[in-house]
Amino acid sequence: MGLTIGVDVGGTKVAAGVVDEQGQVIDKLRRPTPSSNPVQIVTTISEVVTELLSRHDVEAVGLGVAGFIDESRANVVFAPNLAWRDEPVKKAVEDRLGISVRVENDANATVWAETKFGAARGHSHVILLTIGTGIGCGIVLGGNLYRGQWGIGGEAGHYRVVPDGRLCGCGNRGCWEQYASGNALMAEAREFARRSPAAATRLLQLAGGTSDAIAGPEITRAALEGDPAALRCFNIVGGWLGQGMADLAAILDPGCFVVGGGVSEARDLLLDPARTSFEKALAGRGHRKRAEITLAQLGPDAGIVGAAQLARR
Amino acid sequence: MGLTIGVDVGGTKVAAGVVDEQGQVIDKLRRPTPSSNPVQIVTTISEVVTELLSRHDVEAVGLGVAGFIDESRANVVFAPNLAWRDEPVKKAVEDRLGISVRVENDANATVWAETKFGAARGHSHVILLTIGTGIGCGIVLGGNLYRGQWGIGGEAGHYRVVPDGRLCGCGNRGCWEQYASGNALMAEAREFARRSPAAATRLLQLAGGTSDAIAGPEITRAALEGDPAALRCFNIVGGWLGQGMADLAAILDPGCFVVGGGVSEARDLLLDPARTSFEKALAGRGHRKRAEITLAQLGPDAGIVGAAQLARR
Repeated sequence: MGLTIGVDVGGTKVAAGVVDEQGQVIDKLRRPTPSSNPVQIVTTISEVVTELLSRHDVEAVGLGVAGFIDESRANVVFAPNLAWRDEPVKKAVEDRLGISVRVENDANATVWAETKFGAARGHSHVILLTIGTGIGCGIVLGGNLYRGQWGIGGEAGHYRVVPDGRLCGCGNRGCWEQYASGNALMAEAREFARRSPAAATRLLQLAGGTSDAIAGPEITRAALEGDPAALRCFNIVGGWLGQGMADLAAILDPGCFVVGGGVSEARDLLLDPARTSFEKALAGRGHRKRAEITLAQLGPDAGIVGAAQLARR
Repeated sequence: MGLTIGVDVGGTKVAAGVVDEQGQVIDKLRRPTPSSNPVQIVTTISEVVTELLSRHDVEAVGLGVAGFIDESRANVVFAPNLAWRDEPVKKAVEDRLGISVRVENDANATVWAETKFGAARGHSHVILLTIGTGIGCGIVLGGNLYRGQWGIGGEAGHYRVVPDGRLCGCGNRGCWEQYASGNALMAEAREFARRSPAAATRLLQLAGGTSDAIAGPEITRAALEGDPAALRCFNIVGGWLGQGMADLAAILDPGCFVVGGGVSEARDLLLDPARTSFEKALAGRGHRKRAEITLAQLGPDAGIVGAAQLARR
């Protein structure tokens, strides 16, 4: 039957699923991540996988981890939201479970799922951008997952778009993810509401009257209602998204951009300004074909599906 | 003996060479490029190749062209400094010569030569940056030349480094090549000499007294003598170069950057500030291995050697 297990290991939850050859999740479990304890994270992963193994005949396990994975696909070099530093995760989990384990970056798993089963089916050069708190990025080139020389490729959220710009969690200033992410959307809306409360009535109303309580869901809801202040925030963030896609296209000339993550739930409110900005910024635009810019299709299970599919190969 | 011909087709000259399997150029010719006439360019290429064919037994011909080449490696889509627009160059040259012709971007040919025979031997993930008037870029990933979905990959000189920045020949503002190129070096030196002529005495002296006559060779010469004004220019341009390499490393995690082109003749005067800036700007620098940053080794013949080697494959 060719079943594998994919595990999405994030800073807040461990989500595991049994996945078939068509990319369907046929069973699923989730637990909170004990993110501050390296050994406990392994224990939690082992427990959910053991439970799934007791119910299904499975060939291999793939982990999609929010962090830097080394080129051997065995060790987590660094994971900002987990306690892992140079952690031999493949060995640790294999020792407990006695089944083949493969470790991947979570955005790599997601782009692989969207390319095999989702929005980028049929494309060979794909850039996935997950617009959430920051920007997750996974890259498929020539039909293969792209990892770089040492496994750290695809950190596009941290290329610099503004010299001496906004401070980023990575320690640098001006990183793309400070301008084209959920955090950026929220910051725009809050600052706008502080400066122009009269123009931000609907945003403030949805957030209970306090500018600091305005978050992604309120901005998306107000924008979907047509609120100009909320639409302005999406135009700004979408504009930065499209500019960055044009920069990536100058370097990589992909056939398809897939946009996912929480902010993409606003759909064309995000993608329309992104497409406009992309078209305006693309180098050599009069002389080249255009990458497709499309929404992710697989939703939050994409990480599970991709990790499971990569374990299969 | 497995000889092929490589032709470097630039805006000012057509340089052709017979190249052996070890990347050695054993015979060479050059002519001025009749750049304003699409048919004449083909005629010139055909003439130099015919002359070389009369002296050597050759398997195939490779052209390295300064322009966008389509994914079939047959047509020049657009070449800013040549009269070719959607020109079927492969067919035009094959029809005249009766020998197999392959068309490549010139920076692609150069990075292939440096990877096979030059500074990046042994590396599988290589980014070549040719620092001349602008920035030429060629990319090797996983041991293969990288072209993108439609053949236009590797135009890294046109990713944006400064919003609303300096106007670029491509029509956009703030492109990298406006900050980390020979043109940028010259602009820095000239502006410095205009504003602070007393501090730019040596630069002005080398240029015959006029700030507008200061060009790359004068700046390099003054910097090699230790002139602070000239060194300042290299520090600024090298700093932008290193920042851009850090941005490319965030996206692609290469094993090696090869820096060539006229400005690289200043060697460590350019690479030292670039390395410093790269180290400071690299995302996740505490948790990853470093790409090598090295000078090109093959000089101006690299385009000929790479085009010839690509024709061989």
